[in-house]
Amino acid sequence: MEKKRNISMAVIRRLPKYHRYLGDLIRNEVDRISSKELGERIGFTASQIRQDLNCFGDFGQQGYGYNVKDLYAQISNILGLSRDYKIVIIGAGNIGQALANYSNFESFGFDIDAIFDVNPKLIGIKIRDVEIRDIDTLDSYIKENDVSIAILCVPGRAAQSVCDTLAENGIKAIWNFAPVDLNVPDGIVIENVHLIDSLLTITCLLNEKTEK
Amino acid sequence: MEKKRNISMAVIRRLPKYHRYLGDLIRNEVDRISSKELGERIGFTASQIRQDLNCFGDFGQQGYGYNVKDLYAQISNILGLSRDYKIVIIGAGNIGQALANYSNFESFGFDIDAIFDVNPKLIGIKIRDVEIRDIDTLDSYIKENDVSIAILCVPGRAAQSVCDTLAENGIKAIWNFAPVDLNVPDGIVIENVHLIDSLLTITCLLNEKTEK
Repeated sequence: MEKKRNISMAVIRRLPKYHRYLGDLIRNEVDRISSKELGERIGFTASQIRQDLNCFGDFGQQGYGYNVKDLYAQISNILGLSRDYKIVIIGAGNIGQALANYSNFESFGFDIDAIFDVNPKLIGIKIRDVEIRDIDTLDSYIKENDVSIAILCVPGRAAQSVCDTLAENGIKAIWNFAPVDLNVPDGIVIENVHLIDSLLTITCLLNEKTEK
Repeated sequence: MEKKRNISMAVIRRLPKYHRYLGDLIRNEVDRISSKELGERIGFTASQIRQDLNCFGDFGQQGYGYNVKDLYAQISNILGLSRDYKIVIIGAGNIGQALANYSNFESFGFDIDAIFDVNPKLIGIKIRDVEIRDIDTLDSYIKENDVSIAILCVPGRAAQSVCDTLAENGIKAIWNFAPVDLNVPDGIVIENVHLIDSLLTITCLLNEKTEK
């Protein structure tokens, strides 16, 4: 199958949603689905679906629809789920510990390899068999273990300095939960989960509604 | 000051970021800033900034720039930060507990009023002085206490049913951490934090880079 690459960020952001819905269809033993029906479930138009899925190959068949298992497998592959990733968590506070314990990661084959913190009281404690290490050993760990993804759960004031250490030692991606934006060299993937920003979107919309 | 309403979702999503950067400027004792300089800090163009801020009033002055404190106060107001919100957490698992303990909420004046769970072992335990209640009492609590925002941290399979209970009892907004999309009646604000979708965006981009 010929793959057309250079998928836009907008499509990439929709792919996990396709993956979720197709996984549900497989669990419900649905073998094939039309773009129209898939669209109705996901909340996209049929033409949006066809356009998105066309971006990375010729999946559908006119009059037959999509083979659910094939499409799921292809999207899993494009999402990089057929590979392993070394993942570390930095900051073993509330959010860091919750993510270390988050069982949904395992169902996708994601394992946390190491956790780092600055607090001597936490260093040495294990979360699900993964030991919390001294953040002073972060640089050598990243370099020696070829870590791909760092989950950054440190306070905002510490985030840029930890980010610099990660960048200098060859990190490939940072999943940032700190409530700041990070400066990183080109080529490092940054994905922010700005919780407060998300909550403020809600309060803004609630406020708008009341004022109207 | 005349306010122009009907702000687009795209602008609403950028507002918390403006709020964050303006807060930093105030802490750094910066009194005024041009759209150009603000743009450079935030990573938007000056014309984008002017266009965004024009949406809800005439903030800037030609040749003077923005008064940082005024703009911050106005944006705080538009974000609904001058009001109080009754907030509950449903699901006291890893993510629910982490959010109940998340100190950043307090700095924005957000308090959690109640936590609910289905697990008898958790019911009665307190997190930061907020008791975990039996989820069977959720419906009456929402109705009687005029709760605005529910933070949904239950497993995916339970999310829709809890969401229905919330909707039937007059919830105004749901901040959804469950890894599913929810069907809600019109008029209820839904904001999703789909953690796995966010992580899969990272693996997709890492995978794309390796294949190129």
